[in-house]
Amino acid sequence: MLDVDKIRADFPILSRQVNGKPLVYLDNGASAQKPRAVIDAVTRGYAEEYANVHRGLHYLSNLATDKYESVRGKLQRFLNAGHEEEILYTTGTTMGINLVAYGWAMPRMEAGDEIVLSIMEHHANIVPWHFLRERQGVVIKWVETAADGSLDPQAVIDAIGPRTKLAAVTHMSNVLGTVVDVAAICAGARAKGVPVLVDGSQAAVHMPVDVQAIGCDFYAITGHKLYGPSASGAIYISRARQAQMRPFMGGGDMIREVTRDGVVYNDPPHKFEAGTPGIVQQIGLGVAIDYMMAIGLDTIAAHEADLRDYAQTRLAGLNWVSVQGHAPGKGAIFSFVLDGAAHAHDISTVLDQKGIAVRAGQHCCGPLMEHLDLTATCRASFAMYNTRDEVDALIDGLELCHDLFA
Amino acid sequence: MLDVDKIRADFPILSRQVNGKPLVYLDNGASAQKPRAVIDAVTRGYAEEYANVHRGLHYLSNLATDKYESVRGKLQRFLNAGHEEEILYTTGTTMGINLVAYGWAMPRMEAGDEIVLSIMEHHANIVPWHFLRERQGVVIKWVETAADGSLDPQAVIDAIGPRTKLAAVTHMSNVLGTVVDVAAICAGARAKGVPVLVDGSQAAVHMPVDVQAIGCDFYAITGHKLYGPSASGAIYISRARQAQMRPFMGGGDMIREVTRDGVVYNDPPHKFEAGTPGIVQQIGLGVAIDYMMAIGLDTIAAHEADLRDYAQTRLAGLNWVSVQGHAPGKGAIFSFVLDGAAHAHDISTVLDQKGIAVRAGQHCCGPLMEHLDLTATCRASFAMYNTRDEVDALIDGLELCHDLFA
Repeated sequence: MLDVDKIRADFPILSRQVNGKPLVYLDNGASAQKPRAVIDAVTRGYAEEYANVHRGLHYLSNLATDKYESVRGKLQRFLNAGHEEEILYTTGTTMGINLVAYGWAMPRMEAGDEIVLSIMEHHANIVPWHFLRERQGVVIKWVETAADGSLDPQAVIDAIGPRTKLAAVTHMSNVLGTVVDVAAICAGARAKGVPVLVDGSQAAVHMPVDVQAIGCDFYAITGHKLYGPSASGAIYISRARQAQMRPFMGGGDMIREVTRDGVVYNDPPHKFEAGTPGIVQQIGLGVAIDYMMAIGLDTIAAHEADLRDYAQTRLAGLNWVSVQGHAPGKGAIFSFVLDGAAHAHDISTVLDQKGIAVRAGQHCCGPLMEHLDLTATCRASFAMYNTRDEVDALIDGLELCHDLFA
Repeated sequence: MLDVDKIRADFPILSRQVNGKPLVYLDNGASAQKPRAVIDAVTRGYAEEYANVHRGLHYLSNLATDKYESVRGKLQRFLNAGHEEEILYTTGTTMGINLVAYGWAMPRMEAGDEIVLSIMEHHANIVPWHFLRERQGVVIKWVETAADGSLDPQAVIDAIGPRTKLAAVTHMSNVLGTVVDVAAICAGARAKGVPVLVDGSQAAVHMPVDVQAIGCDFYAITGHKLYGPSASGAIYISRARQAQMRPFMGGGDMIREVTRDGVVYNDPPHKFEAGTPGIVQQIGLGVAIDYMMAIGLDTIAAHEADLRDYAQTRLAGLNWVSVQGHAPGKGAIFSFVLDGAAHAHDISTVLDQKGIAVRAGQHCCGPLMEHLDLTATCRASFAMYNTRDEVDALIDGLELCHDLFA
């Protein structure tokens, strides 16, 4: 069982106050806080062990390179990828999906070709495909969620037609918490010869991920949600799909030879990693992954399932709160609106006065909000360091909002 | 005058030892070390003030957003850009130049259109243009340097023909130290209606830069060379050129509205900044810029000019060392080879045993190395915290190499 007091003590920011109250940080869907081990690794990376990677032969450069490259193996184990070079470093999910859009999809998709998306995708998994629609006539096919926020895998598979070149779906909705059966989608898509990109931004934070068991072609994660530094991240891309890709960004490191007349590209993964990378960020991400795996991904998931169940029960007691998304086995992410005059932004502001950080707005999910017929929700999203007491604080805050705005 | 002892005390890593010797860090062309103020800002950013930016309404999100966005004004002043929104955040020069290649050049260049480059460009300012050559038949025209490593601005202007759509040149060579008269190139190119991209990766570290006085359209800088965090950076792009650009990466923040059928893009600069950015990295970069400007860019340049003159004199005393690049007013960057059997990599390894960090190889400049008819050089590149004593240490180390390999 997870010792939440011990974990909370590892996160310096959790002992601070906001507006005179202890911080209750429930904005983890947007970004997670960092344990001291990650912060210390970043500090040490700059203060004692810093140099550019790959291109040096001196002590500090070798040291930084070894530390930086060792994170690839950690990420391979974290996602259970078959090969270390299937892990490509990125600055986050947005860059990872753009890498697939520019490197894999763009050169192979023609006008009338289709991409299948679920209606609950984050803009990071929509806008790169809208680029292909705008620029080369690709068609986006949307698969809707059921009333409870669940996504029928068969509906995604059925949407895959003869012109479909890619299906791209989230593993866990950042608004509804819905967990998608991506393994079933991948099996169905593979039978039709269509690759699948999975947006793992949320899921990888909250549940064990096994890309081989899922059978996906692309799996994007983002370090800043994984208790790692901002601008850290990675994407799993299978060997077979990498072999079909052209490079995305051009620059140093991703080449073997450059002459006036041509370029010989480096081998993967470096072929897809141009220029001086986020050296210290990736080292910090490695420490974050170590931290999570030392606690245990199942242990984290069990703690968050308890928080989810407790929050569900408590929220169900407030008959003036409408929670969006009740899919079985959902993550501990609660988007809601209050009956009456209280706008999501007002609720967020009142909660903030009590030290409670939630998010209000569209949550980068325009099509889903349209589908739900909402302009904005409040969202409370939980992480491994949250507690039942914090659920209670949220409920107390919402009761105050209800009193103020009802 | 710069108080180098005081400055050295600000950089924690400079007091460490390497291989039992005090570190002599002369690999600044690859990446610079970080002052304590930057490291502390990064630590504070994670330990006390962290949240995602732009999308929140709570205290920490507003605090992080204010700090993150305030760096844009610092960079505007640092480069003397006319407007704050002409500063776009990047993860470094490589991303900045790729942004221009994908966002500006790609949609407007056809087969046979030309890009003019100098022979001493870094791969970051070559490979993105090779992409356009490979993918859409763009022609790269190369302008060579003179024997002393200088670049005649008129030669660049003369290379601009009726099919030329862009000239892209470095402001300071990372191999030769050559400072290019980019203002003259921009004036000549403007008279022919051709925009100019300047790679300021090295120059911005070592001399005051005024993009309005230069008259360039694009000016790329990278934070990790500017004493800032890895994966921080920016590019200046004039309003007029931004108006001609389509977005590069798609995701959150760069949109105003996303529906099933379309996207309404955000206003610049956000239109060109997708997804969760390098929040803490950019905050750290702002502190690095503050640090440099508090010392004074002219003061830094004067100190480095003294180091350059001293190193030139001392190296000239070793008649078995061939320095590449003697352009008047060059930066304090020295690439060299030794007569006899010593390979650049061997020299680097011997120097490393003495605690001296230099770089050996092609320095991401394949075409220049071909032009110089060299396979590799050693490079000692100086920064504001280096001293005449460190020049002496380098000379002593080279004399040892000469004894070992001659």
